[in-house]
Amino acid sequence: MGSCMIGLVLGLAMPVSAASTIDAPTAIAKRMEQRIKALAQFGANPEGGVSRVAYSDADIAGREYIKGLMREAGLRVRVDVAGNIIGRREGGDARLPAIMFGSHIDSVPGGGNYDGDVGVIGAIEVAQLLNDHKIQIRHPLEVVVFTDEEAGLIGSLAMLGRLESAALDLVSHSGKTRRDGIRAVGGDPDHLDLAQRKPGELAAFIELHIEQGAFLYEDGIQIGVVEGIVGIRRWDVVVEGVANHAGTTPMNRRRDALLSAAELALAVNRVATTLPGRHVATVGQIRAEPGAPNVIPGRVVMSLEIRDLAAENIQKVFDAIGSEAGRIAAARQTPIRFQEFDSVTPAPTHERMRQVIAAAAKDLGLRYRLMPSGAGHDAQDMTHIAPTGMIFVPSVLGISHSPKEYTSPEAMANGANVLLRTVLAVDVGALN
Amino acid sequence: MGSCMIGLVLGLAMPVSAASTIDAPTAIAKRMEQRIKALAQFGANPEGGVSRVAYSDADIAGREYIKGLMREAGLRVRVDVAGNIIGRREGGDARLPAIMFGSHIDSVPGGGNYDGDVGVIGAIEVAQLLNDHKIQIRHPLEVVVFTDEEAGLIGSLAMLGRLESAALDLVSHSGKTRRDGIRAVGGDPDHLDLAQRKPGELAAFIELHIEQGAFLYEDGIQIGVVEGIVGIRRWDVVVEGVANHAGTTPMNRRRDALLSAAELALAVNRVATTLPGRHVATVGQIRAEPGAPNVIPGRVVMSLEIRDLAAENIQKVFDAIGSEAGRIAAARQTPIRFQEFDSVTPAPTHERMRQVIAAAAKDLGLRYRLMPSGAGHDAQDMTHIAPTGMIFVPSVLGISHSPKEYTSPEAMANGANVLLRTVLAVDVGALN
Repeated sequence: MGSCMIGLVLGLAMPVSAASTIDAPTAIAKRMEQRIKALAQFGANPEGGVSRVAYSDADIAGREYIKGLMREAGLRVRVDVAGNIIGRREGGDARLPAIMFGSHIDSVPGGGNYDGDVGVIGAIEVAQLLNDHKIQIRHPLEVVVFTDEEAGLIGSLAMLGRLESAALDLVSHSGKTRRDGIRAVGGDPDHLDLAQRKPGELAAFIELHIEQGAFLYEDGIQIGVVEGIVGIRRWDVVVEGVANHAGTTPMNRRRDALLSAAELALAVNRVATTLPGRHVATVGQIRAEPGAPNVIPGRVVMSLEIRDLAAENIQKVFDAIGSEAGRIAAARQTPIRFQEFDSVTPAPTHERMRQVIAAAAKDLGLRYRLMPSGAGHDAQDMTHIAPTGMIFVPSVLGISHSPKEYTSPEAMANGANVLLRTVLAVDVGALN
Repeated sequence: MGSCMIGLVLGLAMPVSAASTIDAPTAIAKRMEQRIKALAQFGANPEGGVSRVAYSDADIAGREYIKGLMREAGLRVRVDVAGNIIGRREGGDARLPAIMFGSHIDSVPGGGNYDGDVGVIGAIEVAQLLNDHKIQIRHPLEVVVFTDEEAGLIGSLAMLGRLESAALDLVSHSGKTRRDGIRAVGGDPDHLDLAQRKPGELAAFIELHIEQGAFLYEDGIQIGVVEGIVGIRRWDVVVEGVANHAGTTPMNRRRDALLSAAELALAVNRVATTLPGRHVATVGQIRAEPGAPNVIPGRVVMSLEIRDLAAENIQKVFDAIGSEAGRIAAARQTPIRFQEFDSVTPAPTHERMRQVIAAAAKDLGLRYRLMPSGAGHDAQDMTHIAPTGMIFVPSVLGISHSPKEYTSPEAMANGANVLLRTVLAVDVGALN
């Protein structure tokens, strides 16, 4: 099956709809499943799933397994200074920038076998199909396995040139500092600038990933065309009351910071539920001070996180929450302040790329839907460097970061097929 | 001034009202103030107040100072096996049990100069007045300084015979285990049973203390006649939700344990404020699990504490909270359970003792009020051993456990005067 004619026949510029004319080989679901299972051995937990945290022995062994698969797919393997594994295939035109695609294989502690892994095995499947079918295309290809995605998109941040030296001193789940971890996986943390990819250096970046949510699964949709990775704004919310003896302070004499915090947590949910939009707002952490059963809380610190694809909408939700906070603070005489930290701006994917991915899905007869990614991905860093696209496949019940993650072989193959067709379309100029 | 006739003239049994006929010397406010200031040097903090935590060097030095004052007041000083300092004065009738009175000098970290100290300096003032005025009475007197009141009424628990061996292994604020601490202050933790006082062994116990609340201060009342130490029931409240990704789980798909916990915290306050009574109910601790800004809380653990002088009323408040919890749990599909721990039954003071204290206050022309103690005191243990009374004097603004504690010399002297008259009335049989 398949054709090796595409790249040669079609010219530089090509309308998006032309993607639907592409005839390409089909991913082998069974092979992908076998490889997912083989990869699952590295860091396997007795109760299922993996703890293949970045830089751990399991991660290092898993990376070696992946390098082997890359070579089997005809790729030339190198590790960049940030520890990213890059499997390269040269193109027909040496002047053209590479099309990069891939994901990660590190997991959270107690993670599953599909988050990241599907994108890596899918990317290798694409390379393998091109290799096995001797399909020559114009652009070089780079299949990438990013370093330490789970703890902060380390590999893609390095490509973006935004990995701060201070971040390297943090101790990762592996027990190693990131600096030592990057060294352990074959990188060179002292020369991270060499990992940087300048805008224009890559023709495109495409990431295949499981959804990590239940929209696709619940609606029986096979492909998510990601509109972008949502922006995240986070605040420490500090509520000031008056700490006092819980035995001797009568009910009507209290300025209990926790009561205000409780009202505010409910208001956050009410605002987020009431305002139109796809945003989410969450209070995930809460702490009362001094924090004893027999002391009225004098202060409460809690987190607030708002996510949306549109920065303006995040602001709108925050403003509404702020106004509720003002009302609560005044009514209960407990000042409330918001200290922002650790925020991420929304990262929309490339408009034409979305069309290319949608056309590929359509061409394959797959049900697809445009949707934001509520979770963070390396793709969000890559949007700053290259025209970026992202393909979601369903995760059963929307489960993620859990041993219970599951994506069927067919769903994985659907994703690889869309990825392959997207790469081929980009190669013949679909983004131009 | 004063008379040494009372004990000799009056018979064994005497009506409470007879207390008003007592002519006794008057406490010297200035001396009490000087001694409070001298005691304040031991463990003084640069920003005011003291950190004279039990068993610390400051505590040990403060205890030596107190022993000196006791000797100056004509008391024979010993330290019992639990580390309680006992200054004894023999009575006229060797067959009679001792009247005990006193309090503690250990403080919380960052505490003030009046909590406990006023009761000890007041008790010594009483002994000093009796000594200086050569007033001989029938009963022996024992002025007591209890060991480690702040961290768990250690000295009085030992007198009650309820100090568990396991509690001795806990490390106290001093850095020492209680076992080593008791040894350091001159006790013998291996023979704590020798500290026990059997019911009937003491004629009475009386404690003078600052209020640690604002009822007296705000209403300009000079003496609180304590009706009892409130009972305390405490629960860990566990709310079970479903932890999930805060980015990919839409608002209408959440079972957020924190929202239920917030509703419940507000319900606790509403129930406590609405039901008639003097109870208080407090949520002082709260923790969301797993506790990250980007994870919907799957579980919340918070504390619930209810205090009242009547056990039935605590139960009534708890039942109402439980019914609110049931409603919230059902509406939000987040089971809520209550695990009780560390509860204390209410300890009412001796009925006749209250009348004796009130009569003494009245006799002195002082405004007094019957009131519960919302805070715990050694007196609550002593209620199980002896007819127990407790005298409160106002603390400015109701402040306690703070360097800002303040009680005026006059207020302290009022307390000592009431204590002296109470001791004298008990001596002549006012409780019989």
